Amino acid sequence: MPARARTDRNAATRASILDAAERLFAEHGVHEVSNRQVAEAAGQGNTAVVGYHFGSKTELVRAIVRRHTEPIERARVEMIARIEGGAGRSDDLRDWLACLVRPTFDHLEALGTPTWYARFGAQVMADPALREVLTDDHLGSPVLQRVLDGLRACLPALPPETLRERGDVARHLLVAVPAERERALAEGAPTVRATWADAATGLVDVLVGVWLAPVSR
Amino acid sequence: MPARARTDRNAATRASILDAAERLFAEHGVHEVSNRQVAEAAGQGNTAVVGYHFGSKTELVRAIVRRHTEPIERARVEMIARIEGGAGRSDDLRDWLACLVRPTFDHLEALGTPTWYARFGAQVMADPALREVLTDDHLGSPVLQRVLDGLRACLPALPPETLRERGDVARHLLVAVPAERERALAEGAPTVRATWADAATGLVDVLVGVWLAPVSR
Repeated sequence: MPARARTDRNAATRASILDAAERLFAEHGVHEVSNRQVAEAAGQGNTAVVGYHFGSKTELVRAIVRRHTEPIERARVEMIARIEGGAGRSDDLRDWLACLVRPTFDHLEALGTPTWYARFGAQVMADPALREVLTDDHLGSPVLQRVLDGLRACLPALPPETLRERGDVARHLLVAVPAERERALAEGAPTVRATWADAATGLVDVLVGVWLAPVSR
Repeated sequence: MPARARTDRNAATRASILDAAERLFAEHGVHEVSNRQVAEAAGQGNTAVVGYHFGSKTELVRAIVRRHTEPIERARVEMIARIEGGAGRSDDLRDWLACLVRPTFDHLEALGTPTWYARFGAQVMADPALREVLTDDHLGSPVLQRVLDGLRACLPALPPETLRERGDVARHLLVAVPAERERALAEGAPTVRATWADAATGLVDVLVGVWLAPVSR
């Protein structure tokens, strides 16, 4: 087979494995699903194919995370450019919260129902061994840090522990709220909000409340 | 063996299994740990003992949840009685939020470091198959419903979807925030707050913000 055709076939195999793994992990749990089950769901006759392409389960999880966080981060960079450029840096808290929330929600909207990534991400965050994949590659990224810096510049002076505490709360909600909505959509259960865009508006409201909440001594 | 001694020995065996399972599940993941590993960590020679006492893993998880939620719910009932009785029902949002937050945080404080229950609970909530154990037995309990009703009576009129959305956010934070703190304590990492009581105060502040946040149309 020519080198080009081999590369294309490798890419198609990898994509089919990532699709199958993401769906099975979201529905049955990352640890419940074996490489063999992933290979079978991906229509691969050779059940060693997952290990061959991705190595360990942690690396497979990392590849799924990257496939989503790359477009999300690109959209976030564009949103930041809009509120930093031209008329000068925005000092509206909602603008910065939108940069935090909307890229993920827009990405899930663009994928179309059903999606699996949000439920997968919530499991990864709760897992003692896997959570570092998500915190290193995405929630600790320099792009997200720029958003947090912009956001803090809009806030009243807050004690450092309050800033950290509310940053942790926001990070949890950025993962948990989309997962809850995705689960409801997958189960055909009623969703609190009609669209991903409305759900993003609801979360931006909540995060305005979180960051401007009273501070008890 | 007399019946009484047999009952005592059964109770001690069950307690040792629950202790071992909770610790192993918190540290390694509920699905990563086998019944055999639980039995060995509990010092039981017969590795079938876990199945004998608890049946399925779901029932073992349910037993761990109950061991903690029973004292937490008792403390919550007492707190509710204090703010409902005597001088009449409290209309201070913070009183009701304290009933939501403090019983869990006080329970973790009383157990002494290290605890495992908060990390275990966060995994259970994120697991597609296990989350119903926690939502049915605890987060959907009539006692928690009384707190939510009391809390809503202190709020301005909010659209029903906003009430649901903020209830979901509170439920997530009640699980995620203690898990984050417990993880930091277990790893010897710095914690945002010095004590469980201070952490509870921080979360009550955040939840005041969540419930009183602006509502965009």
